[in-house]
Amino acid sequence: MKALRLHEYEVAPTIDEIDRPTVTDPWDVIVEIGAAGVCRTDLHIIEGQWQPIQNPTLPYTLGHENAGWVREVGSAVNNVAPGDVVILHPLVTCGLCAACRVGQDSHCERAVFPGINTDGGMAEFIRTNARAVIPLATGLAPTKVAALADAGLTAYHAVRKASPDLFPGSHAVVLGAGGLGHIGVQALAAITSAEITVVDRSESALELARSLGAHHTVLASSDDKSAALVQEVTGGGAHVVFDFVGEAGAEILSSRLIRNRGSHYVIGYGGEVRLPTIEIISREINVVGNLVGTYTDLVELMALTAQGRVELHTVEYPLDAALDALEDLRQGRVVGRAILVP
Amino acid sequence: MKALRLHEYEVAPTIDEIDRPTVTDPWDVIVEIGAAGVCRTDLHIIEGQWQPIQNPTLPYTLGHENAGWVREVGSAVNNVAPGDVVILHPLVTCGLCAACRVGQDSHCERAVFPGINTDGGMAEFIRTNARAVIPLATGLAPTKVAALADAGLTAYHAVRKASPDLFPGSHAVVLGAGGLGHIGVQALAAITSAEITVVDRSESALELARSLGAHHTVLASSDDKSAALVQEVTGGGAHVVFDFVGEAGAEILSSRLIRNRGSHYVIGYGGEVRLPTIEIISREINVVGNLVGTYTDLVELMALTAQGRVELHTVEYPLDAALDALEDLRQGRVVGRAILVP
Amino acid sequence: MKALRLHEYEVAPTIDEIDRPTVTDPWDVIVEIGAAGVCRTDLHIIEGQWQPIQNPTLPYTLGHENAGWVREVGSAVNNVAPGDVVILHPLVTCGLCAACRVGQDSHCERAVFPGINTDGGMAEFIRTNARAVIPLATGLAPTKVAALADAGLTAYHAVRKASPDLFPGSHAVVLGAGGLGHIGVQALAAITSAEITVVDRSESALELARSLGAHHTVLASSDDKSAALVQEVTGGGAHVVFDFVGEAGAEILSSRLIRNRGSHYVIGYGGEVRLPTIEIISREINVVGNLVGTYTDLVELMALTAQGRVELHTVEYPLDAALDALEDLRQGRVVGRAILVP
Amino acid sequence: MKALRLHEYEVAPTIDEIDRPTVTDPWDVIVEIGAAGVCRTDLHIIEGQWQPIQNPTLPYTLGHENAGWVREVGSAVNNVAPGDVVILHPLVTCGLCAACRVGQDSHCERAVFPGINTDGGMAEFIRTNARAVIPLATGLAPTKVAALADAGLTAYHAVRKASPDLFPGSHAVVLGAGGLGHIGVQALAAITSAEITVVDRSESALELARSLGAHHTVLASSDDKSAALVQEVTGGGAHVVFDFVGEAGAEILSSRLIRNRGSHYVIGYGGEVRLPTIEIISREINVVGNLVGTYTDLVELMALTAQGRVELHTVEYPLDAALDALEDLRQGRVVGRAILVP
Repeated sequence: MKALRLHEYEVAPTIDEIDRPTVTDPWDVIVEIGAAGVCRTDLHIIEGQWQPIQNPTLPYTLGHENAGWVREVGSAVNNVAPGDVVILHPLVTCGLCAACRVGQDSHCERAVFPGINTDGGMAEFIRTNARAVIPLATGLAPTKVAALADAGLTAYHAVRKASPDLFPGSHAVVLGAGGLGHIGVQALAAITSAEITVVDRSESALELARSLGAHHTVLASSDDKSAALVQEVTGGGAHVVFDFVGEAGAEILSSRLIRNRGSHYVIGYGGEVRLPTIEIISREINVVGNLVGTYTDLVELMALTAQGRVELHTVEYPLDAALDALEDLRQGRVVGRAILVP
Repeated sequence: MKALRLHEYEVAPTIDEIDRPTVTDPWDVIVEIGAAGVCRTDLHIIEGQWQPIQNPTLPYTLGHENAGWVREVGSAVNNVAPGDVVILHPLVTCGLCAACRVGQDSHCERAVFPGINTDGGMAEFIRTNARAVIPLATGLAPTKVAALADAGLTAYHAVRKASPDLFPGSHAVVLGAGGLGHIGVQALAAITSAEITVVDRSESALELARSLGAHHTVLASSDDKSAALVQEVTGGGAHVVFDFVGEAGAEILSSRLIRNRGSHYVIGYGGEVRLPTIEIISREINVVGNLVGTYTDLVELMALTAQGRVELHTVEYPLDAALDALEDLRQGRVVGRAILVP
Repeated sequence: MKALRLHEYEVAPTIDEIDRPTVTDPWDVIVEIGAAGVCRTDLHIIEGQWQPIQNPTLPYTLGHENAGWVREVGSAVNNVAPGDVVILHPLVTCGLCAACRVGQDSHCERAVFPGINTDGGMAEFIRTNARAVIPLATGLAPTKVAALADAGLTAYHAVRKASPDLFPGSHAVVLGAGGLGHIGVQALAAITSAEITVVDRSESALELARSLGAHHTVLASSDDKSAALVQEVTGGGAHVVFDFVGEAGAEILSSRLIRNRGSHYVIGYGGEVRLPTIEIISREINVVGNLVGTYTDLVELMALTAQGRVELHTVEYPLDAALDALEDLRQGRVVGRAILVP
Repeated sequence: MKALRLHEYEVAPTIDEIDRPTVTDPWDVIVEIGAAGVCRTDLHIIEGQWQPIQNPTLPYTLGHENAGWVREVGSAVNNVAPGDVVILHPLVTCGLCAACRVGQDSHCERAVFPGINTDGGMAEFIRTNARAVIPLATGLAPTKVAALADAGLTAYHAVRKASPDLFPGSHAVVLGAGGLGHIGVQALAAITSAEITVVDRSESALELARSLGAHHTVLASSDDKSAALVQEVTGGGAHVVFDFVGEAGAEILSSRLIRNRGSHYVIGYGGEVRLPTIEIISREINVVGNLVGTYTDLVELMALTAQGRVELHTVEYPLDAALDALEDLRQGRVVGRAILVP
């Protein structure tokens, strides 16, 4: 089969002809790829940024946002069967460790991460396991949902975790309405009753945000101006700020946008949070980390997608044009998310 | 009546003869002081550190940890009557703002703080209101509980908030077993089933901690050593770290002591929390602020005290010897907490 | 002023000329009535059904769903001022008891209930207190919201309490889409992401429910048929059933409509829940009581109303025509809710 | 190997020589039994009471409370190894269904229940799976913990679920201090800070309860007397009643023992809960079902046992004397719990 393989860091991956994966463990599931999302993380992987963290053996196949059709299952698999249409949770988890046992599988002690530290889905087939597959509702095609498997899931996870604090009359502020942020806005509109304010440097991103459910938008200029505008719109600060940027100043601005007892949800990364302890305690505020999402989070996100409450704009590329897709992403020419279709 | 009054910053307060407070508002309650806690904050007030924050009109009476007997009540007061033995929540709150309406009265929009920004309890009488008084169970004397009204309440509040995460088999780590910390250890032992590890630079503080319920203790030396020892004792890091220090490196060390999905509870202050966003998200950790406690927190703390599960070691000084108490505190000569008895 | 007064049980109340209420307590608030909801409970009061429970001194003024304009306030009131447009929480609470201190004011130990056990709002003016008044957002008129103050609040309270269980992909079933139920459907659509199924005996009630956000409707016939249809629509039973009927079989049917670990929320009343303990434990199901709502619930419901997410159909009667309104209600001739406008 | 096998209902089971179980599935784990608890449910099984519910194929091996040593594991098992000392969660679960994915594995859709519907542990060896085994801390022997695997787990689960409502100053009432109840009392003392009141008909059961942490005891006589005493001791009713009886009147008495907003936890079974809906709503009370416990519940219970906070009194019988153990249990001659040791 064809697969987009990374052979060397800082060198473009190539489309190789390799063997199809086969069932080797009783819980294995072989999925024929219907679509694989192209993500900024793929660019970072090629640049070698993830090498020190995950150190995969090269060459290997990229692609960590996958959906398709089950083609083969191991002897112990009883939750899907060949022919089922599925989206894949990005992690292959054990179901036995303490985190898995309480539904926090994104912290599985034995997790494997296809596309990151083993062969992923920018190929015709992928091997995953029974705990990673989620059957799709009738009408949901792999091309429609693949790109939600990681980026969308991360945004949803943060919103879901914050939802108890986002009651009617509360305020949610979203920093950054890009790839993750625009899913975040939809998730906020779908599962909370907060008033939603979006802060972004791009007027077109704000326009998109308004069309997806944002009640207020603030065009980011200086931090002082943004903070003043958000304080005004929210009547004294947000109950929760979702920082989808995490760098370039957003990680510092965030705590200025929340009210007493509010929370700064960190989702994007790159910068450093700095907060005097006197401010943390006198305002009794929180900083909350967010990492991917659980299997159940993805089940819920698929329910919202099936109901039409979350939608992703995607641009299709054939797998053979994978390098074009990566280049278009690098150049900022992709509107919405790019997906590869074998 | 006699009262310890601050006339000028950086000048010792004096014991003056002033008028007894009287009921001026229908919700007022006049309490005859049985004991008033002497707190490090009193030293900071005299030094002028709180002037920019609270800016009280001088002179005024110190004392924000108070207990005693109700002597007079306003026309609208129906929850206590003259003769009742009470402890005073440190804040005088409104009962009408959004925070008060959901039981988060320590964030009351209209709060007044006797001893901090209006006349306090280092005197023979104090004026507070009906929402601040908590009747004591039979057997609890003002001298036994006064010093729990602020410092103890703060420690309890943090432990109470963290308690859902401190199930059997979990690990709580306490940084600093001093005035607040040793109440924190007792609260942890009383209301959670976590294994408790205490880190302190003083062997005698650790000895006290063990006698109060700590299961493990670590004598703080270098951060690397402390971190390694805590990681070992807790099998990979604490579920919750309670930082009662908040400065001098504890605020940086704290995040190294927690496991994935763990929380760093900030209670002490002075320093600055610095955390790369990549660390916050990849470990999905939290930083949680803590401020005093609610009225209901203090009700619960009094229940634990009545049951003998929380105990405070106090040293009594007559009100006339208030300056001696302050000087002994400054010199580190007070074992436990000093209280003033009129 | 004019007031609709009940002089004797089972005898029509009369419109009397009585004195305007005045401020007698520092927390009192005098409100000029803009609208007062007419409720089935008013009929039951006249019939004498509430006499053994509340035993009010006759004569007294009816009306427990009130909104209008603040006209006078007591000396201690600082949250509203004359001229403010307000809705009234049905209970006048103390702010001091344990329930009030944790925001559960609908269980206030010292609550007074205007219109039920003291003079209510079917009059030109009413006396309430500072803890009962909620300022309305610009654009919300008393006539638009008055009838939400009790019935709507009760429906909202139940939905709000259940909301953590109503995540994407979950199923909520509503029994009875009448006065309370049709607010319940709107609240479900506004603050949860559950799929909503409504069961009612009236096709027109189901039609209304669909227009308000119900995804599925079941015309109630035999219990067996209803149960089978609900089981099918919900894929094995609801996560939460809201029983707005509470009698005539609904209270028995409810537990047949929930899945394992599901909850039967009791809101309507009249019948008796009967459940074998073996069924309760083997299915691990819950029965959950619901009573009115808290002040904060009503604040949130007003936020939803201001945002246009909850709407009430009302029919106005002048106060002078109060007996017509009561008779129309008794005869089932009121579409939506009747309100009295002085 | 030897195994206690049921061949026919209402006929004493026999000790047969049968084949040792072997690994047939990649997740299988073969455990050499160290101890198997003898439970009242075993008597009911023999009487045929469970036949309509579980309908196992006869003959089969009894024993659903098991602990011992891992002797063989399937190819996919990586959480235990031969030689490990383990307790067995009573259910063999799938790790794939919605309930398993959120940690509610006791509601697993594909669960198998050894000793109830397939071969259990009153034998020399048992087959279970990787998801059912919990390694024991050093010092915990199979004979000390086996009888906690089902009865103890059920009691712990109920207490754990109620624990957020059992803050300092709250009241827990336990109905029935027998096999489950006396574990419940220990769990309450270990993980909550409620005041514990135990109601039982036996003075010796009350004496045991006091020694295990009960603060108050009530010798059950008439319901009116018991209710009055509990109301007095608890200052107006319990926050949570744990009904370990569930029949013979306890299921009716329970709701009389709780205060407004309180909960009746149903654990024992046999009777029928009957509650007028007017009472459910006017007091806003709850009825909460409880079934076994999750894997994580059992992990926590083992942590408490290792810490010495929960202890079980057991009487050992050799497996060959299994019929004596059953007869002693039937005759009420077992003090604590009987266990079979092969």
